[in-house]
Parts: sequence; C-alpha cells; structure tokens
Amino acid sequence: MRTVYVIGVGAGDPEHLTLQAVAAMNRADVFFTIDKGEAKAELSGLRATLLARHVTRPHRVVTARDPERDRDAPSGRYAGAVADWQERRAALYERMLADELGEDDRGAFLVWGDPALYDGTLRILQGIRERGAVAFEVVSIPGISAVQALAAAHAIPLNRVGRAVIVTTGRRLADEGPPPGVDDVVVMLDAVDAFAALPGDGWDIYWGAYLGTPDEALVHGPLERVGEEIVRLRGELRARKGWIMDTYLLRRRTR
Amino acid sequence: MRTVYVIGVGAGDPEHLTLQAVAAMNRADVFFTIDKGEAKAELSGLRATLLARHVTRPHRVVTARDPERDRDAPSGRYAGAVADWQERRAALYERMLADELGEDDRGAFLVWGDPALYDGTLRILQGIRERGAVAFEVVSIPGISAVQALAAAHAIPLNRVGRAVIVTTGRRLADEGPPPGVDDVVVMLDAVDAFAALPGDGWDIYWGAYLGTPDEALVHGPLERVGEEIVRLRGELRARKGWIMDTYLLRRRTR
Repeated sequence: MRTVYVIGVGAGDPEHLTLQAVAAMNRADVFFTIDKGEAKAELSGLRATLLARHVTRPHRVVTARDPERDRDAPSGRYAGAVADWQERRAALYERMLADELGEDDRGAFLVWGDPALYDGTLRILQGIRERGAVAFEVVSIPGISAVQALAAAHAIPLNRVGRAVIVTTGRRLADEGPPPGVDDVVVMLDAVDAFAALPGDGWDIYWGAYLGTPDEALVHGPLERVGEEIVRLRGELRARKGWIMDTYLLRRRTR
Repeated sequence: MRTVYVIGVGAGDPEHLTLQAVAAMNRADVFFTIDKGEAKAELSGLRATLLARHVTRPHRVVTARDPERDRDAPSGRYAGAVADWQERRAALYERMLADELGEDDRGAFLVWGDPALYDGTLRILQGIRERGAVAFEVVSIPGISAVQALAAAHAIPLNRVGRAVIVTTGRRLADEGPPPGVDDVVVMLDAVDAFAALPGDGWDIYWGAYLGTPDEALVHGPLERVGEEIVRLRGELRARKGWIMDTYLLRRRTR
C-alpha cells in the first residue's frame, strides 16, 4: 500500500521542524511540490533547504504547476471558487500519485504551518481516496502554525484564563464582524485589512508578518493607535517582497 | 540579564519536540519543574527522558511542589480560583528564579503542548516581571499542542474551507452551549463530559486521549452513536491510569 505523508514544516523558521517531521521526511521516496509562481519562490527555497539539511536517504522531488485560482471571487462565491480550484488540484495530485509512486512507495507533501489549519492538502487527498482510482493511506504530521509563531514572537498566550479563542479568516471577519461572545480572535488569510473596520477603542492587536524568518515584522498595541501603521506596513512589505504572509490576534480589552 | 525560556515540548510524543526547542534546551543552565503529584508522574518521566535524550550541556534541575488548587470551584468562581492559585504559583516561581538563576543565567520551563494554549506559565512570568523584584526576559518557544495532535491522529483538518474554528473549555461548553455561528469546536480541559449534553443528531465528534503516547485512544463518529462510548471510555481510562488528558473536535454536520 502506498503511504502519503502530509508534513507540517512550521511557519517559516527552519528550526520549527519537529523530530517527527524529520523522521517522516527520511521515510519518503518522493517529495511532491507545487510550483506556486514567483511570489512563493522564497518559500520553495526554504523547502529545498529543509530537504538538503535533514534528508539523508535517496529521494526524488516531483514538481507540478499549481492550477490557476480565482482569488478575486466575491464572498458569496468564495467557497465555490476554492472548491473548483481544489478539484483541479485533486486531478493533478491524483495523476502525480499514480504516476510517481510505486505500489509500496512513500510520498510526502511538505506544507507550511500545520496540515490541520487552513491548508487544503488533507482534504484534497481524502477526496482522491474516495474516488478510488489510486489507493493510499494518509499520515498527517503536525507542524508549528503561524498562529503559534505569532504568539511566541509576542511571548503571549492566545487564550485568557478559562476563555475561548477563535481562529477565523479576514474575509469572514470583514463580512460578519467579530464572533459574539469571543474576545480573542486570531485572523489568518486577511487580504482586506479586516481589522481596520473594527472600533479601535475596544481592541488590542498583536500582528506579525513573515513569522520565523529574517524578515519577521511585529507590531502590537491598541488598535486605534497602531491600526493605521499596520495597514501602511502591510502595503509596503507586500510591495517590497511581492507577497505577504501575516496573521494577527485581536484581543478585546476588558472593561 | 536573566533569560527564561518557556518551551513547548508537544502533546506527549517525544518526537513532537522541535529543533528550536532542542536548541533552547541546550542554552539553559537550570530547568524548573513543578511536582504536580502522582497523577502527572508519567508526564514528569517523559520530561526527564527529553532532558536525557537531547540536552548535552551541564544543567541543573530544580523541582518545587505545586501549590494546592481548588479544582472544584463552581463556574462563577472558576477564574477567581485560578487567579488565587496562580498568585501562589507566581510567588513560588519568583523565589525559584531569584534563588536559582545568576545574573546572566538562562532558565527553562518545559510545558506540555504549546505555551500559548491553556498554559499559565507565560501569564505567571509576566506577572512576576511586572512586580519588578526579579528582572528577566521571556522567550517563548512554540510546541505541538494536543489540538494539533488530535487532528493529526485523525488525519483531518480542524477548519472547513473559509470557516472558523474555536478552541474552548469543557466548562464553557457546558455552561453556554456551542458558540453561535461556529460549526467546528475544539474542547480542552473537559472534566464534565460536556459533549454528552449536545443534541447528538447534529454533530460528529473526533476524540482522543493520551495523544502521541503509547496509550493513545481515539474514537470518532456521529455523536449520537459514539457519545456514550466516549463517556464510558473516559471513565475507564481515568480509573485505570489515575488521570486523563484528552481533547476533542465537535464538527456540526452540514445539512
């Protein structure tokens, strides 16, 4: 039976790798990578570094080109756009697994952060298994997520004593506002500066970009004081590097 | 200046340790551990294993006895009971740091899971810094949390496409029910089988105990079918080992 490892490699710092991830990488015969274009070239470079540094047994790297994705779909069509893109990605993955993995081979996908948080790989592989054309088992290896790297960089806990913390998307925060009854809100994948629309006098923000990398940028403070600075900095950094990966915690001030 | 590392060592599997955690452990002069009594002796054993396996430089281990904690406080007094216990713990930590760390020494606390999620160490250390009697800086090193180990064990993502996921406590779920508008709910620290009170026909549950250890137990399925089994299994496991550490994801079924 084929085995496919989905390995979380952390949020950007090569030292985020777990011992378990290193061991799994050293059981893989084939590493599957998706070429996501120039913007993510830096991340591909880090992936190559991890392989060079930690994998001691012979292996192949197979790279495919990512299907185009409609990132500008309006909110109502967002899930549909993602589903469509995931379907094309699934066809690509299925072909790669069938063509490149022998009956008892082990393949691996290295994913940023944690495979369980805002990453589609497990869902796509599950879909392929259900179609039944290629048989394989999936092993998921957890990794340090950007959420955790953010909290560590600010040396703060995510939750308050006995309280909940929610992880959501920028799009959802922009559409629905902060979820009722939850005072600690982590936001990922925010393309719209959703934090800027909140009433500034109610929230503190802990923001971080390129977490765990030499380009790491951090800002924290009352939202009404640092919100504009973060909007400006996001624009500058995105312009300078061509892409941005950032996340933030919104913490409602207790009265 | 003294440095205190708060190092997440993962959810139970010694292989959850990150390369960053190993490096930080090898910068520490003193490891501070808290004796939490018999129930957690197994976890202390794993901590000793990690030190023996990964720390190559001379170091000391300082152990203190955990202050008594009122775990039976009713919901309304829960935060107060925790605050009281944390105050006594803070006094203990402050004394340990002052007595055991030289001016430029580096101390370390190894914590289960991730220091940012349902762990009080960062909060206690921040409180001590604010009192000002001992000066030190805090470095937080993220670790694989039980939430991530749970998702990995079941090979599932925590969130659905473009949706939020909330992490909350059993007590909060029991008192307030599932948060409105959120369909993926991770529950930690549940001493009351809070899941059993939910309408079974609306939810799937992914449950895990002793995640990442040889005793790992997993159950998943529709809540109405496996809920009673989990209640029974929790009781059995707690009786057999004297303690239980478990967590679960409740996933609202889409209609």
